[in-house]
Formats: sequence, C-alpha cells, structure tokens
Amino acid sequence: MNKRNALYAQSGGVTSVINATAAAVIETANKSKRIDKVYAGKNGIVGILRENLIDTSLEDKAQLKKLIHTPGGAFGSCRHKLKDFDTNKREYQRLMEVFVAHNIGYFFYNGGGDSQDTTNKIAKITADLGFPVTCIGIPKTIDNDLPYTDNSPGFGSVAKYIATSTREASLDVESMSETSTKVFILEVMGRHAGWIAASAGLAAEKKNDAPHIILFPEVAFNQKKFLNKVKLTVKTCGYCVIVVSEGAQNKDGKFLADSGSVDSFGHAQLGGVAPYIAFLVGDRLGYKYHWSVSDYLQRSARHISSQVDLDQAYAVGKAAVKMALSGENAVMPIIVRKKSKQYSWEIGKAKLSEVANFEKKMPKNFITKDGFGITQSCKNYLSPLIQGEAYPPFKDGLPEIARLKKRMVRKKLKNFKV
Amino acid sequence: MNKRNALYAQSGGVTSVINATAAAVIETANKSKRIDKVYAGKNGIVGILRENLIDTSLEDKAQLKKLIHTPGGAFGSCRHKLKDFDTNKREYQRLMEVFVAHNIGYFFYNGGGDSQDTTNKIAKITADLGFPVTCIGIPKTIDNDLPYTDNSPGFGSVAKYIATSTREASLDVESMSETSTKVFILEVMGRHAGWIAASAGLAAEKKNDAPHIILFPEVAFNQKKFLNKVKLTVKTCGYCVIVVSEGAQNKDGKFLADSGSVDSFGHAQLGGVAPYIAFLVGDRLGYKYHWSVSDYLQRSARHISSQVDLDQAYAVGKAAVKMALSGENAVMPIIVRKKSKQYSWEIGKAKLSEVANFEKKMPKNFITKDGFGITQSCKNYLSPLIQGEAYPPFKDGLPEIARLKKRMVRKKLKNFKV
Repeated sequence: MNKRNALYAQSGGVTSVINATAAAVIETANKSKRIDKVYAGKNGIVGILRENLIDTSLEDKAQLKKLIHTPGGAFGSCRHKLKDFDTNKREYQRLMEVFVAHNIGYFFYNGGGDSQDTTNKIAKITADLGFPVTCIGIPKTIDNDLPYTDNSPGFGSVAKYIATSTREASLDVESMSETSTKVFILEVMGRHAGWIAASAGLAAEKKNDAPHIILFPEVAFNQKKFLNKVKLTVKTCGYCVIVVSEGAQNKDGKFLADSGSVDSFGHAQLGGVAPYIAFLVGDRLGYKYHWSVSDYLQRSARHISSQVDLDQAYAVGKAAVKMALSGENAVMPIIVRKKSKQYSWEIGKAKLSEVANFEKKMPKNFITKDGFGITQSCKNYLSPLIQGEAYPPFKDGLPEIARLKKRMVRKKLKNFKV
Repeated sequence: MNKRNALYAQSGGVTSVINATAAAVIETANKSKRIDKVYAGKNGIVGILRENLIDTSLEDKAQLKKLIHTPGGAFGSCRHKLKDFDTNKREYQRLMEVFVAHNIGYFFYNGGGDSQDTTNKIAKITADLGFPVTCIGIPKTIDNDLPYTDNSPGFGSVAKYIATSTREASLDVESMSETSTKVFILEVMGRHAGWIAASAGLAAEKKNDAPHIILFPEVAFNQKKFLNKVKLTVKTCGYCVIVVSEGAQNKDGKFLADSGSVDSFGHAQLGGVAPYIAFLVGDRLGYKYHWSVSDYLQRSARHISSQVDLDQAYAVGKAAVKMALSGENAVMPIIVRKKSKQYSWEIGKAKLSEVANFEKKMPKNFITKDGFGITQSCKNYLSPLIQGEAYPPFKDGLPEIARLKKRMVRKKLKNFKV
C-alpha cells in the first residue's frame, strides 16, 4: 500500500493546550500503517507556502511527550487567511505543489473559525485539481466561539485561570479596601464573545462574592448604570471587582477601548479597556482603583490548565487522525456534551462548510437581567469545563517545557514569497 | 499566673502567604499557657484604633487551617502610618487605651518597613507609659526590600508566579511572531526595588531565551539604548519579551509611567508603564505588540505559591510568638541563609530600630553590565526562593479559601475617629 505523509499546522492565537492536540495527532498518526511521516508547518500555513516543513520523526520521543504540558504553539502559528480560490489562485496552487512534492495525503489544520474556512477550501481544491488530500479541521480557540462543538479546546483552561485569578485577586482587594483600593478591574480576552468574561463569574459562591460586575461584549455598555452599580457595590460590600471583556462596546458597537475618552485634565486615553474603566471609576466616583490586563498570561497559563480541557484537546487531535483514516473528509471533530446528570462528553463531528466563519456568542439566558452577571444556567454550562488541575511537571521551581529541534524537511521547490 | 491576650494585625499590601503567618501566630499562641486569647485587628492598626478586634477563638478550627492556602489578608489590612508620638499623641494614647481595656500583653505586627517602624514606636511608648506590651514585628513584603532578612515572606511566591508566567507567555509570543505579535511587555510590581522584575530572569535557561530585556528601577531608562536592544533582539530571535518594573524611571528619577509621553497623534498617555513601553515600541519601531499588567494577580496567586516561601511565612509567624514568650521585645524574626552548598535557612532576629524605613535594592553585581538582565549571582540568590509548588486544595475546579466569621470582641471604649 502506498503510504502518504501527514501534515499538521497550527493557526491563529495559540492556547495552553494546543500542543496536546499536536501530540495526539503525531502519536496517533505514528501508530497507523497508512501514514508515513508527520510533518508540521513551521508557523502554520505560511510555513507550508514557504515549504518550511518540520519533520517530527526527527524529534526526541521524550521531548514530543512534553508537548502535552507545553503552552504556546510549538511549531509556530500564524495569522494568514487564504482568500477565495478565484482571487488567490497563486497560493492555492503553491499549496498543491507542496502537497504533491511531499506526498501529503492528510492535512490537519488546528485553529478557530477562520482556519476551518481555509481547511474547507483546501479540501475542495485539492479534489478539484486531481490530488485529493484528506482535510480535517481541529477545533481550537480560547474564545469558545466555534459553533456546533459544545466548547472549544483551549477555552476551559483560560476559564479556570480567570475564575481562579478573580477569586484570588478579590481577596486582595477586599483586604485593602478599608483604607486604600476599593475597585479592582480585570481585563480579559474573548474578542466579540463574552465566554471568558463569563467564566470569572464562577469565582462567586455566595451573594456579594466577587466578581460584582462583568462587562460582556453582548451587552451594550451603559455608563450611568455601570457607575451606579459600582457605587452601590462599594456601599454594600466595601469593595467592587469588575471583569471586563476586551470586546466590551457601547450601544453603537464601538469598543470601549477605542472610545477616545478624555479625563478632567484633557488627557486622551490610549490602550486597553481596563485602564479606561479604571479612569471612569476614579474620575467619576473618586475611588482608588487597581487594574490588571492578563493578556497572553491567561491563554498560556499551562500551570493551571483544566484537566477536562487538556483531555478534550488531546481527544480532538486523536479523533482527527482516526476520522482521516476512516475516509472522512472536510470535517472537524467536535465535543458533544452528553445528556447525563454528571458531566460527560464524547467526540462527534461537524462539516467544515458549516463551522466556518460563524461566531457563537453568549445566549441571552446566560446573562443576568441587569446585564452584569451570569445565570445558574451559565454556571452549569461553564463549571464542568474547569474541572481538574492538569499540573505540568516542575524543574528547579519552574514548569518544564518541550525543546524541539525543528529539523526541516529538505526543500524540493523554488522559493515562494508569502 | 496572669494570662494576657495577644493581638495580631496585618499591614500594607498583602501577599499570597501572609495568612500562613497569621495561622502560625494563632496556632503557636494557642499552644502557650501564658497567652489567653488571640485577637486580630480588623483592617490592621486602623481596626485597633477603632476597637474593632476579631476574636479568633470563635472561629472554626477547620477554617483557621485553611488560612494556610488563602491569599489576601484574611483579617483585613490597611495603609496607615503612625506619626511620631509628639505629633500624634492622640492615636498612641488610644492604642494604649485599647491595649489596657483588652489586656493585651503581646502585639504582633505583620508588615513591611513602614509597619516595623510603627511596631517599634509602640514598644517604646507602651513601656514609657507604664503598660509594657511585648511588640514583635513580622516581616512581609512582596517587594523583598526589607533589610537584614535574606528575603521577605511573600516575595518568593510572586517571583515564582512572574518567572512561570514569563516563560509561558514567551512561548505564546514566539509562536505568533512570524506574522503577528513580535514584542510582549509584562509589567510587574516591586516599587523602588527591582527584585520582582529580576525574578522573571529565572525563566531563561539558555542564550536567547526570554525575557530578553528587564527594566529595573535601579537602572535609569535610556530610550535609545532600549530601542536598539529591542530591534536587535527581534532581528536575532524573531521576537522580544520585555519585563518592566512599575518603578522603572528615567535618569531624573521620574517614573516612566508618569512621563506624560505624547504619541504621534498628540494623545497623552495615562496609566501603567507597560502601555507606555508598548507605545514606544510600536511608535518608534513599528512592531506589533501585546502587553500585560499583572498587578494584584501576581501577589494573590496562591495557586502557584512557592513552597519555600510558604514554609518561611509560617516559620516567621511561629518564631514571633516564641520570641515574645522568651522575653524578647522590639525585634523581628528574619530569614537567614545558611552557608551551605544546598540552600538551607534558619530563623534569626533583627532589632526593629534597625529594620525600620530602609529599602533594600538590588546590588550592582546582580544586574548585567548592559543593565537589561540578571547575573548568575542573582540567579543563585533567587532560585532557591521559588522552589516547590505549594498547591492549595481545589473544590469544583477552584482553589478553596477560608471563610472566617470575624466575630468582634465586645467594645469597652468610646468611639474614636481615625
């Protein structure tokens, strides 16, 4: 039987568990007799276009195992969206040349919505051009905005990090609030969807527990209502913890971070939404505040990854290879929540044509009526995703990470400018 | 024998392990036959002045045990410095009244340099006024700037968090750098001392590992030299990770965060030093950047506390009570690094009169010649302090915390305005 090679690539913003998916693809493919070598695109699709392919068979087995507990994208990721075939023939033809030159039979693209659109196009075009390549999308996004799948690998770990950090920092503010800081603002990621911001709500166990206010992209920011709630919270609890999504916006759909607000001294505001909210609180209410922007820290915090998330990240990688080998094409493994009392899940599948370019936002019944909190339904959805502590091994007090050699496959084609 | 009560209070910025010190004080005092009850000032010295005393004997034992893994200041902290006796007679007299009314024989004040100055004053004045109270300072500061003690409880855990987060986030930036973010900036605390910023340097194992640039308060910021180094790093490594101390300043001693810089659109800059550095990098070099301000997250991250730090935080609390019972006064237990090949430490003591109001900054030989990194001597000093992972217990995916009742001792005095 004519063995063909597999090609794996990472795309878009990385996560703390995307390398677990990579490990699963490599390990599962290595067990198959029908797949020869597993190559990885260096920096995603850009590396494939440049014929920069990493030969994973040349890596030490011990280092590959460490991928399971190494955050970031071990093979490099990229932000590069392929346009339609008609407007971007050149790049598709180049991909085909690379696939043919390196006998690629299976392509695994590990990314979010945009990437699954690309995977879908490649599946179509390779078939159309007479060199069919089995193309499987693998879900990944901390934003949790992919449709069909119950949740996206990468999200559960950020949710755990944000909920944990919110609870911890809240205890700090509470202890300082009598004579000093009364308001703490934490800015979180999530683009246009409030899933990450929502996860902070898990930190609260009882009434008046922090976070007291969550600002979702799904709820238009109302400055007056917000300031009233802050004031009331400080009055009632002595302090106020606010979690704000980077995608929070006003009723005109303008991001708060871009609102160009001016303080009482005439200074314009640059930078994130947390300092913007802090400025409002300080300027309008006079409270002392602190703010934090966790940025990349939240999505790379492998030291506090969720075990459920890690398991699912591995499972979708494994399932992707199994699906490819069983003759599936242009599909993506998804996570299906089973209808059971205790949380349980299984792998299902979705057609790439249906997943592509659709953002799943928070449903209305997940947000409390006042727009500042999450409902019990939301907690029921989120809580299972942060269960279990998948601690990495530590060496000399710091998390151990994989050190890959990233040896390149010998090039066979001419240079190509991306 | 006439038993007297003990009074414990937390002061200044809190840490992820200050409650372990509280637990040690309470547990050790409870074992002594000479100490009756342990009271805690609600919100530090301010609570004592207001006669707001928490009776720890009314707490559930199980909850008190949880203090060991609960960040923040469980009894509340405050920022309130007592002035000299001559200028602030009123507050000292009130303290005396409270001590007498509640039969306080032992006062334990858990804080940084300012607080130890206060403790020292109280020891003197209670003796002078004929109601001698044994006053013991207990060290605590994430800034690690207390003199005499080899390091300060609270610091090691922040160091571990910052080194871990720097390593994790660096892997993220590295994977994005080919087509997107090239520079990542992490702002850390530490006031006028660069200890926390320095700890990020532990993340690097090999040449060219992140962090590539550390900006210390101890080294005057040179914009040209800095931008050149960023450019060179991106050229060599493909990306650049910068860790900047909140206390970073220019040669005139002005904080960078306050530098009032104006961007090319004439917008003035508000807020932290990370966005300021990010702005410089973007504006002058054109690189895409991300920045993070970890703020309270770093000092409350009990989920990744150092075991060595936790052990030392407990040990100083225990030693404080032992010292008080053995007749010491106006002293502070300190951590002494033993002269051994393997790191080991023991408890020593320092006079409060000598500790008070002195900031220990980074020595010159801990910073590399170019001013952007840490030396091997510095690594040798820092590394032992981040050893061991003191994970808290988790429940439902989140760290468990103590829930205290904070029942107040019945007031005996008139109200007092602080």
